[in-house]
Amino acid sequence: MKIGVFGGDKRMLFAAKAFSEDGCEVAIAGFDSLMSLCEIRVCGIEEAASWCDIAVLPVRPVKDSCLNTPFSQERIEIRELLQMLSDTPIFTGCAEQLKPYSSGEIYDYTTDEGFLYRNAELTAEGALGILLNDYEGSVFDAEILITGFGRIGKMLTRMLSALGADVTVAARKASDRALISLCGSTAIDYPFVDHGDYDILINTVPALIIDKCAVDRMKEEVFLIDLASMPGGIDFKRAEGRGLTCIHALSLPGKTAPLAAGAIIKDTIMKRISSLSV
Amino acid sequence: MKIGVFGGDKRMLFAAKAFSEDGCEVAIAGFDSLMSLCEIRVCGIEEAASWCDIAVLPVRPVKDSCLNTPFSQERIEIRELLQMLSDTPIFTGCAEQLKPYSSGEIYDYTTDEGFLYRNAELTAEGALGILLNDYEGSVFDAEILITGFGRIGKMLTRMLSALGADVTVAARKASDRALISLCGSTAIDYPFVDHGDYDILINTVPALIIDKCAVDRMKEEVFLIDLASMPGGIDFKRAEGRGLTCIHALSLPGKTAPLAAGAIIKDTIMKRISSLSV
Amino acid sequence: MKIGVFGGDKRMLFAAKAFSEDGCEVAIAGFDSLMSLCEIRVCGIEEAASWCDIAVLPVRPVKDSCLNTPFSQERIEIRELLQMLSDTPIFTGCAEQLKPYSSGEIYDYTTDEGFLYRNAELTAEGALGILLNDYEGSVFDAEILITGFGRIGKMLTRMLSALGADVTVAARKASDRALISLCGSTAIDYPFVDHGDYDILINTVPALIIDKCAVDRMKEEVFLIDLASMPGGIDFKRAEGRGLTCIHALSLPGKTAPLAAGAIIKDTIMKRISSLSV
Amino acid sequence: MKIGVFGGDKRMLFAAKAFSEDGCEVAIAGFDSLMSLCEIRVCGIEEAASWCDIAVLPVRPVKDSCLNTPFSQERIEIRELLQMLSDTPIFTGCAEQLKPYSSGEIYDYTTDEGFLYRNAELTAEGALGILLNDYEGSVFDAEILITGFGRIGKMLTRMLSALGADVTVAARKASDRALISLCGSTAIDYPFVDHGDYDILINTVPALIIDKCAVDRMKEEVFLIDLASMPGGIDFKRAEGRGLTCIHALSLPGKTAPLAAGAIIKDTIMKRISSLSV
Repeated sequence: MKIGVFGGDKRMLFAAKAFSEDGCEVAIAGFDSLMSLCEIRVCGIEEAASWCDIAVLPVRPVKDSCLNTPFSQERIEIRELLQMLSDTPIFTGCAEQLKPYSSGEIYDYTTDEGFLYRNAELTAEGALGILLNDYEGSVFDAEILITGFGRIGKMLTRMLSALGADVTVAARKASDRALISLCGSTAIDYPFVDHGDYDILINTVPALIIDKCAVDRMKEEVFLIDLASMPGGIDFKRAEGRGLTCIHALSLPGKTAPLAAGAIIKDTIMKRISSLSV
Repeated sequence: MKIGVFGGDKRMLFAAKAFSEDGCEVAIAGFDSLMSLCEIRVCGIEEAASWCDIAVLPVRPVKDSCLNTPFSQERIEIRELLQMLSDTPIFTGCAEQLKPYSSGEIYDYTTDEGFLYRNAELTAEGALGILLNDYEGSVFDAEILITGFGRIGKMLTRMLSALGADVTVAARKASDRALISLCGSTAIDYPFVDHGDYDILINTVPALIIDKCAVDRMKEEVFLIDLASMPGGIDFKRAEGRGLTCIHALSLPGKTAPLAAGAIIKDTIMKRISSLSV
Repeated sequence: MKIGVFGGDKRMLFAAKAFSEDGCEVAIAGFDSLMSLCEIRVCGIEEAASWCDIAVLPVRPVKDSCLNTPFSQERIEIRELLQMLSDTPIFTGCAEQLKPYSSGEIYDYTTDEGFLYRNAELTAEGALGILLNDYEGSVFDAEILITGFGRIGKMLTRMLSALGADVTVAARKASDRALISLCGSTAIDYPFVDHGDYDILINTVPALIIDKCAVDRMKEEVFLIDLASMPGGIDFKRAEGRGLTCIHALSLPGKTAPLAAGAIIKDTIMKRISSLSV
Repeated sequence: MKIGVFGGDKRMLFAAKAFSEDGCEVAIAGFDSLMSLCEIRVCGIEEAASWCDIAVLPVRPVKDSCLNTPFSQERIEIRELLQMLSDTPIFTGCAEQLKPYSSGEIYDYTTDEGFLYRNAELTAEGALGILLNDYEGSVFDAEILITGFGRIGKMLTRMLSALGADVTVAARKASDRALISLCGSTAIDYPFVDHGDYDILINTVPALIIDKCAVDRMKEEVFLIDLASMPGGIDFKRAEGRGLTCIHALSLPGKTAPLAAGAIIKDTIMKRISSLSV
């Protein structure tokens, strides 16, 4: 099986390597400074497209209507690329970015539940890393508020509790709150949160959950992490205005754990391929 | 009670602040760029020495026979300082550094069991932070070897297991190994360790535990952290020679958690003072 | 507030006590051998009905069209009781049992998420108690299969993993399986389960999940617990035929933790009352 | 290798079985009602003694100067048995019971650290089983005091915390208390314990730790478990006098987990034999 990996960040390099270690033939395109990588064929986009049996696109495939290639100057219209790959099965992240350009069958590996949870775990590891490095206090015994109890919230709650933090989770659903309480953390519904109670706040909800009023209630020494993608869930302007420490951690886990993030892309695609061929 | 804090790193700043928040009057000396700090008196060493009822010295008090003041150009012979403080109770770390200069009663807060464990916990948090930030894989599912099951080893074992790593601990004592096994990790005696089995190795033992042969067995992509103080327990030259990733993490937890490290210095001294005055 | 407690098992006794300790006036009916209970009024059903402001019925209120009173010879038609209580707010479990008899407003405390989770936790504690007492091996290191990852399954997974068992959970939903894997247990979809692999099997699913074939695959020394209500999820006849140890644990948590089970009934009702009166 | 198993309780039956499953030839003596057991030779004590290469005696080998055989009417003087076995390596528990009768080399498997910890874990499982079955409240959220932080105390602390109890451990050593605090429980030194604060007390210390005064302070509904061997560490008379629920759990883990207890006897002996023959 010939796998072509097109563009993306360091994760895709590691994904390519992982495919190769699994015994696939692999070509990679869209990394200008890359000369060689194990037994992987390093080539141009066009060459890779005509060579491969299966095309793997990045977690976020499109940027300015071109293939998203942060490590390459080469620009290729996504429309053009998809034409080259018209007979090739495509595996991509965020397939909705490709919708305007293609009516072909595209498999979105970022919708797989296994991928989503593994990715959330890596994101939580990254957030914990930020905390451990940049927060001057200890996680042990810290008063921490997590907003949201989705995948990332679940993983963070587990990790931070295990490290001895005093974790409160804000969650809308009564069943989530019941589960949180039974697992040893404090559960709270949003209207009852007092943002002034915490040393650390970590937002996971992609909506303006932590607004002006919330920011104004916080302690001066508070440490804020926002894990929600742009525009985030914290009123950053207000936080900046007050001089609070506030980190919008956007590129997790690609930045902190590209090896692992690449491996789960490979795993998810291989699982899909083997389920199709059965 | 008038507390004088003399020299040291960021931890001592936070210790001073913590004393002040506890209601003590505090003077701090040995921080040149510090202009003011809450209600704390910022002054010269001589002034602080003559003013205070109780003197607090850094975790490592002596450097080149002077007070250890990394944040000050002011040099004061430790002998001279101790003379100034001849009638003042002294609380210091590593009291053996002061032995050659003084026969007076000196309380060593770094020998307190509570301090040692809290400090070990902070050190483990710091080591975990390094791992989460610099290791490109995930801690979850990683094969990790910890050498040593003292305070730091115990804390690391707990933390890494809680994050889903596959933890093996090398320990000499059969009772330690029995406990490790029952707590869900793998225990192994040193002669049976195969250093080639692990993605990550963390040494906590202050002796050359991981020698040339051990280094030569390791995977190329291994990630090494040494938490033992100088000269450490890993053959760094050999590791460098092989191009392995190897971090000698020396200034934990002063660097990663100075607020918490300062707080436990304050806690330990206050506990001691109150036990004396009872 | 005058609370009347009508019938039920030991849980309702403890619920009555808990209401009384919370400062309510309480009458209890349907316990023949009960002479006195703290400051609680022990009386007949009719008397309690005419006296109380609020009526509390058991978790399973109806038996043979009468009030379910396992500890009393007194028989009262449920229809008759509901007429007596026609102007009284009623709190009951399993409200659907009362539907045929009443069109009034009835609050079902067993549908509250907090109640359901707390009750599941108690059930899991009860199941663990059975295991620890009756299984001749250790939970530590045992190979355990849990079928189902609802509330009880979640609690059991946590508990058994914490005790060092090697837990596998069979779950239909991919998202559940992903979460299970990340929390340190093994997840498996039903078609891939080999029932011969386990020392202990615990079923939580109210459907015939463990059929003849499954039973036939099991080890001779296997230990089976079924937590699903009648008729259960295990082919008991077959299990009996093979001489396997199989426990249908039906009356948890009323039997093993009536004090706690009564307390959560009280908590749930009080929370509801206070939310209504706000 | 021919193993002879002599007397003891159900554990020794399971130990015999485990030896047999490991490929040893096994004879068992001292179980009157036993007719056959897999491929094990069931015979009289004298026969077994003359047949075997290695003799395995019970955890407590001596009762009234005879071999301890709770399941047999056959009485044999321990002196006589040891003469029969004068040329046979002996593995026993509590070797000091044999000291008066023998000067030969006897290996005491109950002094092995691995055995002691595994046995402590089983004992803790047994104690937890008692709690879950007999205590009418829940372990979750219960206020529990554990006296002693030896092996059993360590295991219980882990288990009960994992089940969501609010665990306090009384321990004499400052280093133990420091570790306990960092692992998420409350540590306390004995003089500061208020025995009236707890729902459940579990003693692990073989000394009168919980005296009259302590018993008098307790809540009426308290649940007491004593795991210390005779005479225990609780003033039982006083507890009885007050009508408190108090269980002296003496035969753990032989009663609750004989299969596992037998397996660790076998494991410990086999490990010893293989280390000798290397």
